[in-house]
Parts: sequence; structure tokens; C-alpha cells
Amino acid sequence: VSLVDLRRARIAVFDSGMGGLTVLRAIERLLPGADYLYFGDTARLPYGAKSQKTIARCVVSAAKHLEAQGIDLLVIGCNTASALALYDVREAVNVPVIGVIEPGATAAEELSHSREAIVFATEATVNSHAYQRALARRGFNTFEKACPLLVPLVEEGWVNHPVTEQVARIYMIETLRLAPANCDALILGCTHYPLLKDLFRRVAPQRIQLVDPAEATAHAVVSQLPDNMKLCALMPNAVPTYRFMVTDSTEKFSRMAPLFLNFEVDHVELVDVGQ
Amino acid sequence: VSLVDLRRARIAVFDSGMGGLTVLRAIERLLPGADYLYFGDTARLPYGAKSQKTIARCVVSAAKHLEAQGIDLLVIGCNTASALALYDVREAVNVPVIGVIEPGATAAEELSHSREAIVFATEATVNSHAYQRALARRGFNTFEKACPLLVPLVEEGWVNHPVTEQVARIYMIETLRLAPANCDALILGCTHYPLLKDLFRRVAPQRIQLVDPAEATAHAVVSQLPDNMKLCALMPNAVPTYRFMVTDSTEKFSRMAPLFLNFEVDHVELVDVGQ
Repeated sequence: VSLVDLRRARIAVFDSGMGGLTVLRAIERLLPGADYLYFGDTARLPYGAKSQKTIARCVVSAAKHLEAQGIDLLVIGCNTASALALYDVREAVNVPVIGVIEPGATAAEELSHSREAIVFATEATVNSHAYQRALARRGFNTFEKACPLLVPLVEEGWVNHPVTEQVARIYMIETLRLAPANCDALILGCTHYPLLKDLFRRVAPQRIQLVDPAEATAHAVVSQLPDNMKLCALMPNAVPTYRFMVTDSTEKFSRMAPLFLNFEVDHVELVDVGQ
Repeated sequence: VSLVDLRRARIAVFDSGMGGLTVLRAIERLLPGADYLYFGDTARLPYGAKSQKTIARCVVSAAKHLEAQGIDLLVIGCNTASALALYDVREAVNVPVIGVIEPGATAAEELSHSREAIVFATEATVNSHAYQRALARRGFNTFEKACPLLVPLVEEGWVNHPVTEQVARIYMIETLRLAPANCDALILGCTHYPLLKDLFRRVAPQRIQLVDPAEATAHAVVSQLPDNMKLCALMPNAVPTYRFMVTDSTEKFSRMAPLFLNFEVDHVELVDVGQ
């Protein structure tokens, strides 16, 4: 790659709401010299109760909007959207599309000796069994546990709160009662859960390693990025730029973003991509 | 009213999801001899993050669907929908429409001596300030507190759970720090909260009375019902009939209904009222 070919990558991260910011942050830590576009479909969240067809329509409309902004790569940061709409999005746009589930399963494969894993996720992601299938292809036996209280607790800002620790402990006890005895990997299968990593470390048995699909996804982005963009993104002193787009309440997004990012978000665009 | 005029009332209760079942139950306790239609707009919940225009469109489409089933009275059981769409619904249908906010405010007026009240509600209801306005017209000074964790806790089935009590206690402490010193009424401004009545009783100071808008709404229904239907509904040994309609996942509705009702719901209709 000659220096004249160097080009900043335009990387888009889609999520149904705020949670994908943990994925954005993981990518930006590895690739600081890039331009980031974040799309939070806040008007239509949560995707949990919606049908596959509706979710695919929502994600595809957002993906097309992002493609029209001129992007080099699209990351589906939302676990539910990755589970239910990845193939529809890949058919609809002409840029590489990376979901969080395959990278998460690959990361579990690298960490686990027993090939027995636990997945904590939202009800919709558990019901899709996307992680179970991705892990089964890698020879895993998987126990999936829906943890519906964890997202509201994170969104209340109770990240280091005794109530949240108590709830996580209850979910862990319920899980260990039913999970394979030798499981040694816990996949944090919802974008909000990496914020509770310290807390999960305290409530999980020592033998269990935590798997953060956001980090694994960031590594997948690095490996998919063309060399001229990768080198540019890794230049010393390179800094990221950000554009934030949401479909409802820019004010709420700005207010809650610091829960997920280490900086303030003062400009958020309101986008209309239809029903 | 002559006996030949007696007629069973057809009473519809609308909600964005399951919570309105507490309103249905309060009405049915007062008026057992009636036919009940329940509509849960589960595909489009939560209404919290949506604009007034979108919410009004959703509620009006449901109200028209209910009107087409031949009803005598429509109750908007959802606090957010009552706050944001009551007038649109009244214009759209030709049956009496009762919301939960005015009856709730009237009940607070009857119980309170200090005219200082607390409202616990969802974020959307608090942001609408509908209770504050309704109470201000009655000379009240009101402190509104958003309690976003309580709905997920109820929906997890943790109604008598130490975690839920701890969360309610935290909300109460945060509220008492800021609320008027003499407040003596706590309005349970979300349809899920009446399920936590015993728990609120334990965490609220003795001087504070609990106001359940569901009960107040049931009394409003009784007073609006024509005499021939009211007499029929109050006949000894009269029993209610039920029809349940939802816009998504009838299975989830059936599974969760026993949290709110004292009987099993084995038949739920899936209804499509468009976007």
C-alpha cells in the first residue's frame, strides 16, 4: 500500500437503540483513525416482540439509509437484528456486513476447553437460538438464558448497583442449576451486558470465562477492512470522527450516551426512514 | 327500568399491552354481569418512546376495531394512551370513552387532606405531565417520579420479590427527598403498579394513602353505564364473559395473563390493525 492510497474508512454501526454503542466503542479502540456513523432505531425498539419480517424490514431500511451516506462497512451491532436480519441486509446493500453472533461464537471457541457454554441474552435473541446454532456448528453444547431485567437496569444507570448485582446473581444461580456442569464460557449476548462485565466476573464461578461479542466483532472488522483503510485507521495520533443518527428523541440519546461511551454526545441527527 | 329492557353491557378495555388487565379486573369486580373485550396492542408497545401523533394513530385504529365489534363503552386502560390520545379517540368513535387519569385524580382528591400528591408512573406518562395537570385543576401540588424498572420487574413475575421491594424503596427514598413535605397520596400511575400494592404499602410512610386509578376508573364505568345494563351487570350470580385480542404473540399473552388475572386465558385472538 503506498501512502497516497491511504484512506479513512467510513464504518457504520446499526443498533435498535443505545446498546450498539458498546460495539462502536470496541471498534474505535482498535481502529481510532476512522469515521464512524452510528444509527439507533430508537423509534422502533425494542425489536423483542416483533416478527422476523418486521425486524428485517426495519434493519434493511436503516441499512439502505446508511449505504446512501457512503460507507465502507456496516456492522449490525444488535444481537437480535444480527440473529434475525443479517441475510436480508446482506442482500439489500453492496457493502460488507458484519453481525455480532458469528464473531461471538468464534471467540467462545477460542476460550473454551469444555465446549460447553452459557449465553445470557434478551428474550428475542434466546428465542431465535442463533447463538445455539452458531455454537453447535463449532461442536458446542449451549445453555441460553433470557435476562430481561438487565437492559432496564443498565438504562436506569444502575451499572455498579447492588440491585443489579443481586439480579445477575439470581440469573446465574438459575442458570447453573440447568446448564452443562463443565461450562467454561459465558457469552454476553446483548450489547448492554459488557457494561456489567465486572459484576458478572463477581457472580460467575472462577472457571467461567466471559466472552464479549463486541470485542470479537471489532476484531472481525479489522480483518475485513482493506489495507489502505486499516493502515490509516492505525496511524499514530489518529482520532475518530462520529455521526449519530436516531429515529426518535435525540435528547434521550444524548442524555444516555455517556453510560456507554467515555465522552459526551452533543449533536444527534433525527432520521426518518418510514414505518 | 323494566325487566324486558335488561341488557348485558359490552365493555371494551384498551391497553398497549398486558397492564390494562388490572383495569379490566377492577371493572369486572364491580360489574360481573357484562361481556368484556380486551385489546392489547402488544406489537406496538411500549408507547413510551413514541410521539403523540404515532400513539394517537395506534390507539384510534384499535378503538375503531373495537367499535366495529359492537361495544357500549370503551375504557383506555393505559395511562400513557389516556394522557396522549383520549381526545383523538373520543373524536374517532361513537361510544363513551373513559380514560384512567381523570378518575385517578378524582380519587386522590377524595383521599388527600394536604392536596400534595406523588405520582409513580412510566417515563412517558411523567413526561406528559397529564396527572400533574389533572391534579392542579383540583388545587394539588404534585411530584411525579418515573419508575422505569417496575414494569420489567412485574413482567418478570417478581411481584413479591425482595429485589422489587428494594427497587421500590429506592424510588420512594429518592421521591421523599424532593416531594412536598406533607404529601399524603401516592397515585399508582401505571397499570402494572396495582400488583405491587402490598409492597408500596410497606415502603411508603404511614401518612401516605395509595390511590389506584384502576379502581377509580371502574367506579367511573359504573356511573356512566345506562341503568338497564348496570342492573343486568349487578344481577346475583351474574358472570362475565371475555374476549382477548392482541396484535402480536398470543402465546406470550396467555403465558403472562395469570400474573394480572385470577384465571387462565386459553384463547387469545391475533388482530391486525395495520402499522
